[in-house]
Amino acid sequence: VTASADPVAFSDPVYREAVVDLLAAVGYGEISAFERLAEDAKLAPSLEDKLVLATFASQQIGKVASLRTRLEELGADPFAAMESFRDGFEAFHAHTAPSDWWEGLVKAYVGDGLANDFYREIAAFLDPDTRDLVLTSLEDTGHAGFVVERVRAGIAEDPRLAGRLALWGRRLVGEAISQTQHVLADRDSLTRLLVAGTGDLSGVGALIERITDKHAERMRALGLDS
Amino acid sequence: VTASADPVAFSDPVYREAVVDLLAAVGYGEISAFERLAEDAKLAPSLEDKLVLATFASQQIGKVASLRTRLEELGADPFAAMESFRDGFEAFHAHTAPSDWWEGLVKAYVGDGLANDFYREIAAFLDPDTRDLVLTSLEDTGHAGFVVERVRAGIAEDPRLAGRLALWGRRLVGEAISQTQHVLADRDSLTRLLVAGTGDLSGVGALIERITDKHAERMRALGLDS
Repeated sequence: VTASADPVAFSDPVYREAVVDLLAAVGYGEISAFERLAEDAKLAPSLEDKLVLATFASQQIGKVASLRTRLEELGADPFAAMESFRDGFEAFHAHTAPSDWWEGLVKAYVGDGLANDFYREIAAFLDPDTRDLVLTSLEDTGHAGFVVERVRAGIAEDPRLAGRLALWGRRLVGEAISQTQHVLADRDSLTRLLVAGTGDLSGVGALIERITDKHAERMRALGLDS
Repeated sequence: VTASADPVAFSDPVYREAVVDLLAAVGYGEISAFERLAEDAKLAPSLEDKLVLATFASQQIGKVASLRTRLEELGADPFAAMESFRDGFEAFHAHTAPSDWWEGLVKAYVGDGLANDFYREIAAFLDPDTRDLVLTSLEDTGHAGFVVERVRAGIAEDPRLAGRLALWGRRLVGEAISQTQHVLADRDSLTRLLVAGTGDLSGVGALIERITDKHAERMRALGLDS
């Protein structure tokens, strides 16, 4: 634990476990995003686009180190902790393998957007150090702007794309909700933190509504119905 | 052309073409190395190893930007120039797809080692600015040490691995030589630079011998016969 972390908070084993779970989920998510973006890079229509995707993939990997360090400071085995999220992530990816460049772009933006909003909501309940670490890890490195520009241009060129990608966006949300439920069902500490942080079930409802609103905003930015 | 580049050298169109070809080959090689290391990362026996490979992949991508900038300064389309090397690289990779984690590790070290030694030999004939750019792009970021340590440990645990990987190393050299010959056959500018730089055919022979010696050193470092 760093000197500035709240020692009282971390003396609570349930709180510590929730923080380890969250940092590990974000970390596994970054490694997983690297893998997915490296796969998507293969679908790129040009070498320049391939380099853009490979660069985004690389930026994800650059973010893992600080999470790993913090997990070690918390006395956790960072790889064991991250590994425990593998099944959830792999199930999500297995059910949402993009069939082309467009689906890959939308998935990276919409899927990561949903996950990141969820992590940000949980981060709000945490001590300032952990919160800052999580928020820094989730900062966009220009990926969103690239996807929005490309997808809008793609739809302008072929308007039929919009219907297909709107359906794809809905499928991504459905799978994301389903996998998040599965993961939370196995993580008492995170569920408790979520309920304690939001106050009650109506607080959880409001949180879901905020995440849904932001998802709809992203779909609008892409020029798609949500 | 930057202020410090030799204007006399670049007023020679054959020299300029050779430099464009070399920078483009190194650049395509880095994008290709990213793709290959990202594939190898899937074969990693642990999440920690996967992160190491993903980190090496990311470092390759970080090196492309300066080559791209220089290609633009030379008035070349950087992506068209790099793309012209695709067939050669893809043919090499198609003939040397690793079947497991060990073959992937050896290929990354032995294959990149051969290519980098070849680029370094050519770079020695170039103006100082271009030479420095190429040499910086080829600097090892810890990859070699990781591979040597892992492969030696792997052989210590299963001595039969040594025979299989020694054969694999020979196959990699054979394919590398074959593809380099194909690429050079289409690149008059590079071939001329090579012959002019080495002086004559016996100079070319000495160059090949230096590259072969360094390859044998790498195989010895791995604990393998070359």
